[in-house]
Amino acid sequence: MTSYDTISFLSDYGTVDEFVGVVHSVIHQLAPGTTVIDVSHHVPAHDVRAGGLTLARAAQYLAPGVVLAVVDPGVGTSRRAVAVEVGDGGAVFVGPDNGLLAPAVAMVGGATRAVELANPDYQLGAPGPTFAGRDVFAPAAAHLCAGVPLADLGPEVDPAGLTPGMIPITRVEGDDLVAEVLWTDAFGNLQLNVDPAEIEAFGDRIGLRFGTRTRTGVRHRTYAEVPTGEVGLVVDSYGLVSIAFDRASAAEELTLGTGDEVVLTPIADDDAPRGASTPVTLREKQP
Amino acid sequence: MTSYDTISFLSDYGTVDEFVGVVHSVIHQLAPGTTVIDVSHHVPAHDVRAGGLTLARAAQYLAPGVVLAVVDPGVGTSRRAVAVEVGDGGAVFVGPDNGLLAPAVAMVGGATRAVELANPDYQLGAPGPTFAGRDVFAPAAAHLCAGVPLADLGPEVDPAGLTPGMIPITRVEGDDLVAEVLWTDAFGNLQLNVDPAEIEAFGDRIGLRFGTRTRTGVRHRTYAEVPTGEVGLVVDSYGLVSIAFDRASAAEELTLGTGDEVVLTPIADDDAPRGASTPVTLREKQP
Amino acid sequence: MTSYDTISFLSDYGTVDEFVGVVHSVIHQLAPGTTVIDVSHHVPAHDVRAGGLTLARAAQYLAPGVVLAVVDPGVGTSRRAVAVEVGDGGAVFVGPDNGLLAPAVAMVGGATRAVELANPDYQLGAPGPTFAGRDVFAPAAAHLCAGVPLADLGPEVDPAGLTPGMIPITRVEGDDLVAEVLWTDAFGNLQLNVDPAEIEAFGDRIGLRFGTRTRTGVRHRTYAEVPTGEVGLVVDSYGLVSIAFDRASAAEELTLGTGDEVVLTPIADDDAPRGASTPVTLREKQP
Repeated sequence: MTSYDTISFLSDYGTVDEFVGVVHSVIHQLAPGTTVIDVSHHVPAHDVRAGGLTLARAAQYLAPGVVLAVVDPGVGTSRRAVAVEVGDGGAVFVGPDNGLLAPAVAMVGGATRAVELANPDYQLGAPGPTFAGRDVFAPAAAHLCAGVPLADLGPEVDPAGLTPGMIPITRVEGDDLVAEVLWTDAFGNLQLNVDPAEIEAFGDRIGLRFGTRTRTGVRHRTYAEVPTGEVGLVVDSYGLVSIAFDRASAAEELTLGTGDEVVLTPIADDDAPRGASTPVTLREKQP
Repeated sequence: MTSYDTISFLSDYGTVDEFVGVVHSVIHQLAPGTTVIDVSHHVPAHDVRAGGLTLARAAQYLAPGVVLAVVDPGVGTSRRAVAVEVGDGGAVFVGPDNGLLAPAVAMVGGATRAVELANPDYQLGAPGPTFAGRDVFAPAAAHLCAGVPLADLGPEVDPAGLTPGMIPITRVEGDDLVAEVLWTDAFGNLQLNVDPAEIEAFGDRIGLRFGTRTRTGVRHRTYAEVPTGEVGLVVDSYGLVSIAFDRASAAEELTLGTGDEVVLTPIADDDAPRGASTPVTLREKQP
Repeated sequence: MTSYDTISFLSDYGTVDEFVGVVHSVIHQLAPGTTVIDVSHHVPAHDVRAGGLTLARAAQYLAPGVVLAVVDPGVGTSRRAVAVEVGDGGAVFVGPDNGLLAPAVAMVGGATRAVELANPDYQLGAPGPTFAGRDVFAPAAAHLCAGVPLADLGPEVDPAGLTPGMIPITRVEGDDLVAEVLWTDAFGNLQLNVDPAEIEAFGDRIGLRFGTRTRTGVRHRTYAEVPTGEVGLVVDSYGLVSIAFDRASAAEELTLGTGDEVVLTPIADDDAPRGASTPVTLREKQP
């Protein structure tokens, strides 16, 4: 039997209210000694996609154990509450079956087993049906750490039937690569859904088009190497191409944000004489 | 002798400054091994009522042990610093005697004993008199966890003489119920000081009056069942009636917030013919 | 050999993204059982001076052990990553060598030894060069807690060659003391770089000049003793003179903030007849 000693916890609860503290308290009482690591509680309210991407970025660095994730606009409806095992028990993701868990589950190898959290013995009784984090998800995560087997939490469900995550992929249009801003980080860097390999043939200077505006992005190894005012293209710490300014917010400078489309276009090599690749000879007019 | 291993910590310190981290550090040094759970540090600055309500909502879920709460606009004045025992030692609330602790203390059964934190042996010396959280309250909480008896922290005071909390109660005016927004949560839901039993006779559609505006609220079991654009009335996870929109902020949609008055009024049953409850017979004028 | 069991962690990561959670996860996996205390993660982005001052304020209260601090606009460039030992091993500060650590290191007695974090055996491999907190600094802090000797992290560097911190000091101009706002706390109190001893001769009422505006500050022992509307001068919990209003933000009332200059001027004693300290005898004109 596998048991776990760490819960990584992500939500859209914010930290103004007592929600996060109450979930910690519930876990502490059901599974004393468990380490709870807060991944983030500032996922935008009800933004399942943003929560799923945050979890996916963090996934490969999280401690083995239970991942508790709650961004749950459908709370109290027929959407299922689930626990999804990955790596044959190496970790269990607990949360709503609404696509939130899917990108991270895929990132760490895919689901090997899943159950619906339907057993009321492992839930808290509640005065209202709306705080599933406290009453359903946290108790499930805690009981797993206390040694309750996954199968006791409820009936097995087919992992293939879990709601998939929605991660946008790039598409090629002629010479262009149509990409999307996946994430605007706290520093205003704009992470694209672009692997560096996809733009290897584009060279160091790459045309960028957002709606009707165009800019030239220049590839650099670090944010600090981007000259002031230049639009930098830097492979970020997750291995994806990001748009960055030095000590300034690319999001503000370019008024771009998560979900916006960015078209990358190859441009003429900088070292070639500008405008001289097709020489023109002016002839005097013949009267 | 009772000893404690958990401190639940609430304040209005915010997390921009180092205050919360310093309090954690002080506790960790005086009582290593104590689990500190942050309830919230984003109580609005100096808002004793909001802090007291947050603590009361959380109270029944907190781990047995010490509750450390600091919203303390009168710091350094004659307001007393106290430790209040509840449940004959099941828990101790530590904080200023300004009404902050009272709602939560009442919620978990009332004070059985209280002392004033007047013993300098259990305080930190300080370069100024203004950071009682660090110098008075955190050390008291930590020493309780380290096994110091409550009575050693200072002279006993009469629990009946502690400052009471101010929780607004509803009042009936004719057919109406005059209520108040207790709390605007992070999702913009507006919790009223209304128990569902108080409006049981009102039916599923209830008139709402805020100042000069009126809307119709419709009762639903969950937030997600509220149709788009409709004003929902949902029993929230604390068992109180709240005003809610589906995936939108009721606070923004209605420009309402904590402390605002909401009048609930019974309205004619939807299924009955409108305007027909007191039939009127028009007579022809007799010339 | 010294080993450590506590890491105090400060950064400018914010808590919206998963950065802080990922650093906690990395530490938890490399050094299970280590207590990680968050000092603050809301240092303004890239503001090395603000981070350094926050760390210095907290320093004397932090648990002995490792201090992990990351405000690092030069990440990925030639700025060094360092670990700085203080108190002959009582604590180790880990972070970038850009002046961030210097004020706190000075506050707790100065560096006794330092190494550059150049040993890849104690770093994580990474898909990009930009998240040194996760890949370089957190692993170094964790390995120190796991018992790795400081010397194993990289080659020794001369502590005298570390980048110094920039703390502004007051200067005397005639009768005036030219000071600066070091810090605006969450309540809007303005901490000056002024020790109470520097203004002891100024009396209880002190002229304040900000740019072209002047106000009179009055010394009080606590914030709550400042009468409404009056500009208070209170020795704060760090032993420095701060400008404060009662239950209001001095920063907002005076539209002042961190880095602004404040000139303190002695003014005539309030109890003395105004304008009469150098009596003038009017003589009748002699024709």
